[in-house]
Amino acid sequence: MRNNKPNILFIMADQLRADYLGCKGHPTLSTPHIDALARRGVNFTRAYCQAPVCGPSRMSFYTGRYAISHGASYNNVPLRVDERTLGDHLRPEGYRVALVGKTHMRRDVDGMQRLGLDPDTSRGVLVSQCGFEPFERDDGLHPDQSADPDLPYNRYLREQGYEGDNPWHSAANSAEDENGEVLSGWYMRNAHLPARVREEHSETAYTTNRAMDFISEAGDSPWCLHLSYIKPHWPYLAPAPYHAMYGPDDILPAARSDLERESPHPVLGAFMQHPESREFSRDEVRERVIPTYMGLVTQLDDHIGRLVAFLEAQGQLDNTLIVLTSDHGDYLGDHWLGEKEMFHEPSVRIPMIVVDPRHEADSTRGSVSERLVEAIDLVPTFVDTAGGDSLALDHVLEGRSLLPLVTGSRVEAWRQYAFSEADYAWRPARVALDLPTDEARAFMVTDGRWKYVHYQHHRPQLFDLATDPQELTDVAGDAHHTDTLERLEQALQGWALERRRRITVSNRRVTEQTGSAHKRGYLFGVW
Amino acid sequence: MRNNKPNILFIMADQLRADYLGCKGHPTLSTPHIDALARRGVNFTRAYCQAPVCGPSRMSFYTGRYAISHGASYNNVPLRVDERTLGDHLRPEGYRVALVGKTHMRRDVDGMQRLGLDPDTSRGVLVSQCGFEPFERDDGLHPDQSADPDLPYNRYLREQGYEGDNPWHSAANSAEDENGEVLSGWYMRNAHLPARVREEHSETAYTTNRAMDFISEAGDSPWCLHLSYIKPHWPYLAPAPYHAMYGPDDILPAARSDLERESPHPVLGAFMQHPESREFSRDEVRERVIPTYMGLVTQLDDHIGRLVAFLEAQGQLDNTLIVLTSDHGDYLGDHWLGEKEMFHEPSVRIPMIVVDPRHEADSTRGSVSERLVEAIDLVPTFVDTAGGDSLALDHVLEGRSLLPLVTGSRVEAWRQYAFSEADYAWRPARVALDLPTDEARAFMVTDGRWKYVHYQHHRPQLFDLATDPQELTDVAGDAHHTDTLERLEQALQGWALERRRRITVSNRRVTEQTGSAHKRGYLFGVW
Repeated sequence: MRNNKPNILFIMADQLRADYLGCKGHPTLSTPHIDALARRGVNFTRAYCQAPVCGPSRMSFYTGRYAISHGASYNNVPLRVDERTLGDHLRPEGYRVALVGKTHMRRDVDGMQRLGLDPDTSRGVLVSQCGFEPFERDDGLHPDQSADPDLPYNRYLREQGYEGDNPWHSAANSAEDENGEVLSGWYMRNAHLPARVREEHSETAYTTNRAMDFISEAGDSPWCLHLSYIKPHWPYLAPAPYHAMYGPDDILPAARSDLERESPHPVLGAFMQHPESREFSRDEVRERVIPTYMGLVTQLDDHIGRLVAFLEAQGQLDNTLIVLTSDHGDYLGDHWLGEKEMFHEPSVRIPMIVVDPRHEADSTRGSVSERLVEAIDLVPTFVDTAGGDSLALDHVLEGRSLLPLVTGSRVEAWRQYAFSEADYAWRPARVALDLPTDEARAFMVTDGRWKYVHYQHHRPQLFDLATDPQELTDVAGDAHHTDTLERLEQALQGWALERRRRITVSNRRVTEQTGSAHKRGYLFGVW
Repeated sequence: MRNNKPNILFIMADQLRADYLGCKGHPTLSTPHIDALARRGVNFTRAYCQAPVCGPSRMSFYTGRYAISHGASYNNVPLRVDERTLGDHLRPEGYRVALVGKTHMRRDVDGMQRLGLDPDTSRGVLVSQCGFEPFERDDGLHPDQSADPDLPYNRYLREQGYEGDNPWHSAANSAEDENGEVLSGWYMRNAHLPARVREEHSETAYTTNRAMDFISEAGDSPWCLHLSYIKPHWPYLAPAPYHAMYGPDDILPAARSDLERESPHPVLGAFMQHPESREFSRDEVRERVIPTYMGLVTQLDDHIGRLVAFLEAQGQLDNTLIVLTSDHGDYLGDHWLGEKEMFHEPSVRIPMIVVDPRHEADSTRGSVSERLVEAIDLVPTFVDTAGGDSLALDHVLEGRSLLPLVTGSRVEAWRQYAFSEADYAWRPARVALDLPTDEARAFMVTDGRWKYVHYQHHRPQLFDLATDPQELTDVAGDAHHTDTLERLEQALQGWALERRRRITVSNRRVTEQTGSAHKRGYLFGVW
């Protein structure tokens, strides 16, 4: 039985760039444990998130659907109550589907009220938590203004002797100056200082502990655990010794050109005016923050090593499919931008390592795949791993199972294009550009070589990733590339028209019903 | 109070072509009562349904959303449980929102089960009936194989002395030959015979009676009644005297050319092979069926006259906004096609008459408007009529209130394009074209002058409605019209990308939240 139902450990980092891992080519960053996962599995180097911002990206990961289909286009946009998630698809296969960490899910209060769904019932909890059993829900950002007094991690910190109402902030995400004065980790100028928390009490350590608690408790019944770390997402503050593990000499030079800033695309120009972009364009900021970002990655890596060792000790390692990915990247000053949201590789490309312990996957261990992979591929991958049939759900799921790639099966026609979306209605850039709230969207299409970006109300962009991997030269206006631009534009139109919206009837059912009206007695058009 | 809350009488005919009314220019068809409505209101001559087939068209009417947004792309595709409908929008304004007649709504059994919605609770009934209180639900097509033994209209017929298990079929939709043998109305060859039901017991009469019952019962509280007739939809059989009111000399010549049949567009060619198309291409069929179709329209008109007189007698006429429309048209042999589904004017254009009794609308009474109007405009029209604010729902509703047009207000920028959609996955044409179930879609864009049709996997079409109002000449391949074709194609792409999918957060709320993260304590990008 256990052989047919492997566990699924679905690890997500937050804001982890695809290129900030040793196994993805970072020259100075140490991630030996994640690299070891890559050696045991397939390292997908062209994986894209469906939206380079937490909320919509995650809802795509959890529903297996593009943002334009699930509708939760930005952070804190509630997922519609009748969007199916990973939990809905795996529970019928006998899986316990749990969350430890972050989802960025916001409950659709109005939708639940309209349908009389009580959030305190077990069904209401699942709908509120986008289908996960919230073994430990912690979205990891807790300003004093909005901290839940009962946040479990805060309770844990208090038990360890940390004081205050919100030790998440005052200890784990604060530092001290030489006089013992508390300095908030929300301010990037403090990023070089160690957090006021011992490493073993840090958020990353605690989250890992809770994952182990779940795995111990779950025992031998099949489980899917979404282990979702908040780091290396801001606040950029690491506990000792990770705060001092890297220095300015270890960081990659910024990918940016003067031309990008002097003559920007209007939308990117507006984003460059955001505080995070202005700050990250300064070398002082990059040199202070990026070493800490890297330290947080190495810390995460160490805890993944700890977790893998734990799985092995539990006898579960050979029975657990492991995925390591991230919801999106971080500009870190590349292209004169901070944060994420737009479609340059540092923002939109994500790490994606899939370790299938089963014999069938032996032929691909340690390999690198350049296939275009999308976040939405994980739900079908997990459904098929669990013994389900993702193709029976192809009226809902928009991704493709990665198992054929992981098992080295013959794959006739993989996807030609990957897509990602942005809805920046909430950002000052939208106001600066004087756009209505519903018309501040952008869409990315890439075929692996070319990247096309369509902006509502603004001209498109085109980059040649082969000759310009840093995406410094927009060639959309170059007459040599008109055909390419039109081809990608056509691909976007086709994509927009083909989304899976008829989610209440499966394609197989349609096939069964085709031409059946006469059989059912509806004799139209008969003389 | 009553002045602020007019009643809303939302009358829909089924399969009634826009040009089959006296006030829409039909030369021989008599519809004096509907013409009288047009004289009291605004007659919109360029109104389009969102999908030329019952189910998806109606779901667009009831949700105020395009089919690509609500997802119920064909007949019997259940509407998602969390799609809001007219009822959801009008009940908060104090309205009783009821149905008499057809909706073609299919309950989303799986979706309701997943959310624990009991179909027998009042909430479950509303979700099952797409938001209407089913004062009288009757979808009007009841083959013996699928007839509900408790169908109220059948009970009524039995009370009137009609015999059998399914008098809907054996009486109201059957005729007799000279020997008294029963002939089924499902067969078009019988269309010239009178139905075996007395006119006052016919479906159209009964449905009208039930509307009166509702209006009497509703009394002085504001109500919205969706009065939804099945006729002139097939079975094409009329009770005396309407069966013999028109003859072959009264019918319009078929709009079709030999070239259309000899060298058809592949999708239309596949539709021409359907039985309904083959039959309606024969003059014998047209000459027998169309007079009866016209008789059914005149019968409907007489009952609308009866209903208007009743409203007047009840003192409600001056307090009731009346809309008369249809879910789609009927090819009736035009373009060598039967039924509907595709985008020629006989199929996709609908009647749309709006009578606003209020003083504000006096300036437009009896006028004709050539503005592009869509089925989705009715929900916002009704919301605003009810004293609500449709603009506050513009993250959900995709139509525009017609009230500014009806009150003769200055309208700065009306829509440039109207759209309609087809999903013919269920039809033999899809099999003949060897298309997957999810890729048998087509989309229409018109700017009033030009009509562009985009087919998945097949070349587009373009018609010039000004020089070729019968749409006999596809000019998509004509180099003179490349710019027009590209403009309409761009309009379609823009439309597809702009659909309202973020339905859980209003645009006003987005505006309030824009740039508020720092205020809420999330200090990202701050040095």
